[in-house]
Amino acid sequence: MKQVTRLLAQFLVKHPVKALPQGVRHEATRAVLNWVGCAIGGSRHDTAKRSLAALSPFSGLREASVLGRAERVDIFQAALLNGTNSHTFDFDDTHIKSVIHPSAPVAAAILALAEHQKVSGEDFIHAFVLGVETECRIGMSINPDHYDKGWHITGTAGVLGAAAAVGRLLRLNEQQMVWALGIAATQACGIRESFGSMTKPLHPGLAARNGLMAALLAKKNLTSAEAGIEGRRGFAAVYSTHFDPDQITKGLGKTWEISSNSYKPYACGVVIHPAIDGCLQLQKQYRLRFEDIVGIHLQVHPLVLELTGNKRPQSGLAGKFSVFHSCAAALWLKAGTEAAYADRLVVLPKITRLRDRVSATVTPGIAEDQVRIRMQLKDGRTLNHFVEHALGSVHCPMSDEDLELKFKAQTKGFLPAQQIQSLIDLCWNAASLKQASQIARAAVPKR
Amino acid sequence: MKQVTRLLAQFLVKHPVKALPQGVRHEATRAVLNWVGCAIGGSRHDTAKRSLAALSPFSGLREASVLGRAERVDIFQAALLNGTNSHTFDFDDTHIKSVIHPSAPVAAAILALAEHQKVSGEDFIHAFVLGVETECRIGMSINPDHYDKGWHITGTAGVLGAAAAVGRLLRLNEQQMVWALGIAATQACGIRESFGSMTKPLHPGLAARNGLMAALLAKKNLTSAEAGIEGRRGFAAVYSTHFDPDQITKGLGKTWEISSNSYKPYACGVVIHPAIDGCLQLQKQYRLRFEDIVGIHLQVHPLVLELTGNKRPQSGLAGKFSVFHSCAAALWLKAGTEAAYADRLVVLPKITRLRDRVSATVTPGIAEDQVRIRMQLKDGRTLNHFVEHALGSVHCPMSDEDLELKFKAQTKGFLPAQQIQSLIDLCWNAASLKQASQIARAAVPKR
Repeated sequence: MKQVTRLLAQFLVKHPVKALPQGVRHEATRAVLNWVGCAIGGSRHDTAKRSLAALSPFSGLREASVLGRAERVDIFQAALLNGTNSHTFDFDDTHIKSVIHPSAPVAAAILALAEHQKVSGEDFIHAFVLGVETECRIGMSINPDHYDKGWHITGTAGVLGAAAAVGRLLRLNEQQMVWALGIAATQACGIRESFGSMTKPLHPGLAARNGLMAALLAKKNLTSAEAGIEGRRGFAAVYSTHFDPDQITKGLGKTWEISSNSYKPYACGVVIHPAIDGCLQLQKQYRLRFEDIVGIHLQVHPLVLELTGNKRPQSGLAGKFSVFHSCAAALWLKAGTEAAYADRLVVLPKITRLRDRVSATVTPGIAEDQVRIRMQLKDGRTLNHFVEHALGSVHCPMSDEDLELKFKAQTKGFLPAQQIQSLIDLCWNAASLKQASQIARAAVPKR
Repeated sequence: MKQVTRLLAQFLVKHPVKALPQGVRHEATRAVLNWVGCAIGGSRHDTAKRSLAALSPFSGLREASVLGRAERVDIFQAALLNGTNSHTFDFDDTHIKSVIHPSAPVAAAILALAEHQKVSGEDFIHAFVLGVETECRIGMSINPDHYDKGWHITGTAGVLGAAAAVGRLLRLNEQQMVWALGIAATQACGIRESFGSMTKPLHPGLAARNGLMAALLAKKNLTSAEAGIEGRRGFAAVYSTHFDPDQITKGLGKTWEISSNSYKPYACGVVIHPAIDGCLQLQKQYRLRFEDIVGIHLQVHPLVLELTGNKRPQSGLAGKFSVFHSCAAALWLKAGTEAAYADRLVVLPKITRLRDRVSATVTPGIAEDQVRIRMQLKDGRTLNHFVEHALGSVHCPMSDEDLELKFKAQTKGFLPAQQIQSLIDLCWNAASLKQASQIARAAVPKR
């Protein structure tokens, strides 16, 4: 068996900061911007409040920020809480090939470290890319068997990404990096039984905190396995029935997984995105008022009804699993934001009236990122529209401007509008910041 | 599928403190005494020093003790460090049916909590028993497949035991206890690839800290899976190919797994124990000086040579995997203590001379806890001895006095002799202490 752990460690300690291609750096910057918005967006949820209430009394030196909140905590808690909050609404990024949400474990870990020691923006973005590379490649090497078995791969592979990124910033030597990966591998966790509860978003938070700790322990020479990933009782063998080590080493440093990252424009499961997208496109194109629309018929991919066929949801969370509510609420708000899934909106008569006039049929030939829409208007007209690739899909990525709009919608009300704009600007300039911690400091309410 | 998680949670929140049989309480007290000795014994090892150096700068309120050391840390770090230190020499207790080292994850977690809030000795021992019951039953329900696959079961099942015990002391209600078990289940970790490195003892430490955190989060109503153990993507399904839920629920509250606990008299793998035991018995019975012995032949179980057949170990750690060194060193020290595995002793000519004259043959009919010894003396005599059940085995448990002697050998030099004796007395009285934290306070060097 190839010494995958050591080869990866060599790459992680040696890859030159300056060797990162400009396009890769820009994609990483987009990911960080999107992640900061998600972390602020989730910061007022009960998950955030309850975690903070449980942990904060035990915090050490309060040198780190909880994005979107005034409270300060130690760096382990910051990694855990920011990692958690950014995944609470399941609105963060997705690396489709591994189904990992790559930013949360890595960004939460290194941003916490950057509040403890000086980390330049350039080093921050570079470490972020290396961490994402690590978790995504390890994820691809064991999927789909690993995820199918019941593992939440963002937690299990994420901890290795976090350890790799933090390890690089701590300037671990090769042996220490091998140990960091071993200490991370033995902490990998997160099972899918947690889905649907507040424990699900905890997984990337745990990955961030545990990865951070793994690298700090390795820095003090706490020894670990030499072959944490590929060993006989290592990560791959224990966590999966399938393992393709080439996925980890092939083209390392030449191709970059962050380039295959994708972002969600709408605050719900990705299968509903084409329908929301098409409705909003028609509304915009024909300048329709909500009242103008009296009925909608959708031709959809089978997964849409399988996963989101709830006809009459009674709570905001249930609304996320209803393509019918999602279309009606998006048309009401003229946006597919988290606001569409407020408990209040799910039972608002104006919206339920249209919701009950949305229908959907599974239609052969319609792909996962497609939809065919027939919209009936009050004045008797019928509009037809076909979405070939939904916004946010690999073939139709969100533009930088789309990401800014998403960021503004997520953070509105949590920070003053002016602060939001300067935070956005700061994120775009991440790679040239003197200190990456400026992002964290700018992402909390001013005292 | 039976609702195992809920049934277990009901038991954990409802079992009356007073209903614990006296024999069970005494066995728990023996386990706590043994565990405290192990935690102090491991507290000066590099594993302890490096972990402490990495974590302590980030400690919160320093309200908890690292047994055997003067430094104080927050309760999460105390749980992690004490859980780790007590397993460093692999000298802690073993629940044979599940191969779990039961005390470390549970005792480390609740002793840390007891330094944060008032916990009576009676409640402490009761919670300890419940935690041990939880981890051992869950372990039995998935073994041997689980361990065989590569999981270090003390880490994986241990976190559930720690969460259960802490949850009881936090007075979680039934729903919160279900969540605590769910949050623990999703953090279960520890792979056997770590064996042989400093990361192995980290596993019970992580289990203690993570279980403590799981219960604290549940106390603040962080929701989790309803069926964390038995669910379709729950602990049992994801971590094992085999699951027998009856092992968790059958006779709950009637039989007690702590009663099957066993303790190691000698600081090495259990397969060498009969040989050491027999050598020491002969030495004592015939009042032999080390110089009197010129040769030893052992008839042993196959596992002895398979696991500990190293003829010429060159380090203390390697010495633990040599039945030859173990016998010679034990006769030199007149004890099978950790001192027998100092690097210096492994290459000491006096000892290597005898070591090279120890031989062993696999002999049919010799059981794992047996040995047949032929010892040759300088004066020409040959002594024969058969050990039917080695000390520390299920059929020949260590006496309370044996445990005291072990405790003294482990802690000698780390605490003044007088303090050691009063700590032993305190441990024997654990169940009637006003505050369980007295044990922790008495287990650190006086300032």
